[in-house]
Amino acid sequence: MNKKNLTSPFAPLNVPNLPQVNGVKHATMCSDIKESGLDLAIIVFDKLANVAGVFTNSETSSAPVSWCKSIIKNGLAKALIINSGNANAFTGYPGGKNVTVKTALISSIINCRADQVFVASTGVIGEQLPIEKILNSIPLLIKNIGKDNWSNLAQAIRTTDTYPKLISKKFKIEDKDYVLNGIAKGSGMISPNMGTLLGFFFTDADIPSRILDFYLKKINEVTFNAITVDGDSSTSDTLLLFSTGEGPSHGVIDDVSDPRLNGFINALKDLMLNLSHQVIKDGEGASKFITIEVINALTNDSAKIIGNCIAKSPLVKTAIAGEDPNWGRIIMAIGNAQQKIDKNKLKVYFGNILVAKDGGVCEDYIEELAANYLKNSEVSIKVDIGEGNGSFTVWTCDFTEEYIKINSDYRS
Amino acid sequence: MNKKNLTSPFAPLNVPNLPQVNGVKHATMCSDIKESGLDLAIIVFDKLANVAGVFTNSETSSAPVSWCKSIIKNGLAKALIINSGNANAFTGYPGGKNVTVKTALISSIINCRADQVFVASTGVIGEQLPIEKILNSIPLLIKNIGKDNWSNLAQAIRTTDTYPKLISKKFKIEDKDYVLNGIAKGSGMISPNMGTLLGFFFTDADIPSRILDFYLKKINEVTFNAITVDGDSSTSDTLLLFSTGEGPSHGVIDDVSDPRLNGFINALKDLMLNLSHQVIKDGEGASKFITIEVINALTNDSAKIIGNCIAKSPLVKTAIAGEDPNWGRIIMAIGNAQQKIDKNKLKVYFGNILVAKDGGVCEDYIEELAANYLKNSEVSIKVDIGEGNGSFTVWTCDFTEEYIKINSDYRS
Repeated sequence: MNKKNLTSPFAPLNVPNLPQVNGVKHATMCSDIKESGLDLAIIVFDKLANVAGVFTNSETSSAPVSWCKSIIKNGLAKALIINSGNANAFTGYPGGKNVTVKTALISSIINCRADQVFVASTGVIGEQLPIEKILNSIPLLIKNIGKDNWSNLAQAIRTTDTYPKLISKKFKIEDKDYVLNGIAKGSGMISPNMGTLLGFFFTDADIPSRILDFYLKKINEVTFNAITVDGDSSTSDTLLLFSTGEGPSHGVIDDVSDPRLNGFINALKDLMLNLSHQVIKDGEGASKFITIEVINALTNDSAKIIGNCIAKSPLVKTAIAGEDPNWGRIIMAIGNAQQKIDKNKLKVYFGNILVAKDGGVCEDYIEELAANYLKNSEVSIKVDIGEGNGSFTVWTCDFTEEYIKINSDYRS
Repeated sequence: MNKKNLTSPFAPLNVPNLPQVNGVKHATMCSDIKESGLDLAIIVFDKLANVAGVFTNSETSSAPVSWCKSIIKNGLAKALIINSGNANAFTGYPGGKNVTVKTALISSIINCRADQVFVASTGVIGEQLPIEKILNSIPLLIKNIGKDNWSNLAQAIRTTDTYPKLISKKFKIEDKDYVLNGIAKGSGMISPNMGTLLGFFFTDADIPSRILDFYLKKINEVTFNAITVDGDSSTSDTLLLFSTGEGPSHGVIDDVSDPRLNGFINALKDLMLNLSHQVIKDGEGASKFITIEVINALTNDSAKIIGNCIAKSPLVKTAIAGEDPNWGRIIMAIGNAQQKIDKNKLKVYFGNILVAKDGGVCEDYIEELAANYLKNSEVSIKVDIGEGNGSFTVWTCDFTEEYIKINSDYRS
């Protein structure tokens, strides 16, 4: 059907083993939605878990996203079902009905309300879910919960990712140990699939959904919302953070600024940063991981706009792919951001190499050094606007012939 | 130095011969700014011509653009000097000084004010102009004016365009015949050059600069401002429209709504549309010319935002390159435009083939027909938002491996 993607050069040598999270059980299976491999997963919480979520802003979002948006306000989850191979997006009335049918079946088996069952789907847009296959699989799937490992879970939500993405962090509250596990998928797209970003995070600490929501959104802004592969975002992007409260008991936490949250916040930040970078490193055709740091802009927002303009420029991304220190294209991209810029205050760096300042190329700039620096697989571009204190960092990958190959490959 | 680009499949078989425009004389030469070929051109007007211009909005615009922006308000031009091979952009104080020196020399030879000499440069960013070569060439260049043809002029302003772009239209005022000639360049970029869009239009009718300005800006919005190759715009984009008044004499025109302007307006629109399409058809690596028509949006502006989102999406452009009717990517791009959309009212067409409606794929849609349609070298995507009366059309090209090859090719 589709050509197999080359494995990303950034793929880890070994898939990590993740510890269990108290109160979280899961199962995975092959339900024949995809041609082969794991494609259906369920996570069931022993008791109701607190939950927070962020979802795509797309005006053409998928049926599962609409469902999750409608139930997230309750802040409670008993289960999460995820399939790969079909996004259930732009599927009209039947698409919404298929979500209802799935959640109704699950809630009747595990004894909960349907609006406590979260749903995510990733894969082809515009085709109806093979709902019979899914409904037939659900009883068996639920029967098997608790017997599976986390790498299978990360595996089951993959579409064209070239490696599974998972990570675990430990943290403390009141000197007791808690776990935060995370899985993500994204960035692989093969015609006709749509790249979807999915991320799910699970902890056994007991944190109210309001506080989960606050930190998920805050940290999302500087992690998953600060990465771009091709500027295209999906109809199905979903991040969900669950807290089971089934770890060792700790005192009630009901204030976002409670210092006992610090361990959790740091763990969540590490985990979201790591997984968002894994997504970029598995970007289609990616051969370089690029960090774009904009400093001394008028505001953080202005820095973000400038950073995104650089990160989304095909000309910048192809130059990096070619290991070409073509800094003129960075200047072009900065100019396109339509932010107030004083050309004479602007400084541009490749890594620590100062390339441009005072409105022109730096006098002692040696192009060979910059070309040599760009041979690294992880490179950084730093732009100093020289106007204020605003800063923002964006991560992206380069733009290679492989990207075009993957995405222009006609299904046959 | 750089690999030669493959000639665009849309290149015309023959370079057209353009008639002379009364009151306009020009000359071209090889001044050794580029490795080989014509790279310097001057246009001198017999008498002062009326002039209007539009320029890049880039915050990092080039020294010639800054110069032209500062003198355009006078509305009068005696000469225009253009070089290819070097953009004189991000060249700091020396870059601005080089513009002053050039215009001073030309004005002293042809007896005009320096602020009546327009300047355009296209090519490498961040390198200083070889100003000695240019200053040495100018006297000879001026000596030769009037002996050259228009195809050489279109040739001299090329950088990596794979063919020269020029066109002429005739029109009438008060039953007398006038000429409108236009040349343009753009869309070819080879590392480390920056693609610059330049367009120059010349008529021998007598139209005040205020009216030239009105129509140049108005028509620009639906021609040159409605095309995109890769979403990257240049530091040097410049369009200039000159009126010599040296054709047959006609009555004074001082009202933009004067019906005697109709012939001129139509000719200008034809010419700007044609040249803007020629630029897209010479887009780097382009194999398909794509028309994206958005209709029944809430407003024209909303239609334009949606159209641009589709036209700039790498996923849509790679799908078209692969002749893959992957309409899910169009839905995705529409969703990303962040315009109010009712999924159930949306309709998507490839050519006349209705693909999606009522929130899902069209029941009698046959994918083979759409795949077959996409084998054409000129294809159209139509999106009916179903919300209002706003419409906009955007033109772009597909995104091929050749684009990446051209732009990631390291200079050596």
